[in-house]
Amino acid sequence: MSDLEIRPAAPEDIPAIVAMLADDSLGAQRESPDDLTPYRMAYDRLAGDPNQHLVVAARGGKVVGTLQLTVVPGLSRRGSTRSIIEGVRVHSAERGSGLGTRLIEWAVDESACQGCQLVQLTSDVTRTDAHRFYERLGFEASHVGFKKPL
Amino acid sequence: MSDLEIRPAAPEDIPAIVAMLADDSLGAQRESPDDLTPYRMAYDRLAGDPNQHLVVAARGGKVVGTLQLTVVPGLSRRGSTRSIIEGVRVHSAERGSGLGTRLIEWAVDESACQGCQLVQLTSDVTRTDAHRFYERLGFEASHVGFKKPL
Repeated sequence: MSDLEIRPAAPEDIPAIVAMLADDSLGAQRESPDDLTPYRMAYDRLAGDPNQHLVVAARGGKVVGTLQLTVVPGLSRRGSTRSIIEGVRVHSAERGSGLGTRLIEWAVDESACQGCQLVQLTSDVTRTDAHRFYERLGFEASHVGFKKPL
Repeated sequence: MSDLEIRPAAPEDIPAIVAMLADDSLGAQRESPDDLTPYRMAYDRLAGDPNQHLVVAARGGKVVGTLQLTVVPGLSRRGSTRSIIEGVRVHSAERGSGLGTRLIEWAVDESACQGCQLVQLTSDVTRTDAHRFYERLGFEASHVGFKKPL
C-alpha cells in the first residue's frame, strides 16, 4: 500500500469525512451525508479554533481515516492541559490495517507536542472491540462516560 | 443561607478553587495547593479562550463550588457542538445542600445557550455516589471513559 499521510482536514475532505462518520453502526442513525451544510458550518468553526485539530489520514490521495483532537487547558491536576479524542473513524477498506493505531499514536504524539499531560476519550459501551483496542494502546478504562442530549 | 451566585472565576478565586480540588479523595494526591503557580498559568490560558467557562459558586462572598465547562464544536452528529464538564467540586461545608445540582443545572443551561446539542462528562469509576447523582440529573452512563497519562 502507498504511504500514509496524516494531515489537517481541508474543506474538500468534508464529504469523505462525513461518509466515514455515517458508515458505522451508531453513526448510521446520527449522520446526514446527503446534506453537508451543518458539517461545513462546523468545519469553519473548528478551523478558526487553535485548540481544535481535525485531521484526516490519506493514502494515495484518498481519505481513509479521521479523528478530532481537542486541547483543553484546566486547573485540575496542577493546571494540567488534557486532550480529548473524538470522532475516530477508519474507512471500511482499511480496517485491520493498523491505521487506527497510527491515528491514535498520531493523536498521542500531537498531544505531547501541545503540552498535554493527559489524553482522554470516551467510547460507547457497546463498542467492546474498540475498548480492547484502546487498552492495547495504553489507555485505562478508569472512568464512566455520561452524556445528556439537549 | 444567603443567596448563591454562579459567576466566572476571577484570579482572586484561584486559592479557593485549588483548595476544593485538593479536598477530595482523588484530588488530594494530584494537587499542590501550596504552589499556585501552575494554576495561575492555567487560569490565564482559560481566560483567553472563549470556549472555556471556569465558574465558581459563591455564597455570602465565599467560594463554595466550581466547575469548568468547555464548548467543543465538531463534525460528528450532523456538526453538533458538545460541551464537556470537568473539575466539579462542592465545598465540604456545602455537601448535601443541593449546590452540586445547581452547578450542573447551570452547566446544562449554559450549554444550551452556547448552542450545544449534547453535554458530556466523565467520572472516575470509584465515584459511585457521583454516578447516581448524574443519573438523577438525566445523564446516561452510555460510555466508557479512557485516559492515558503522558
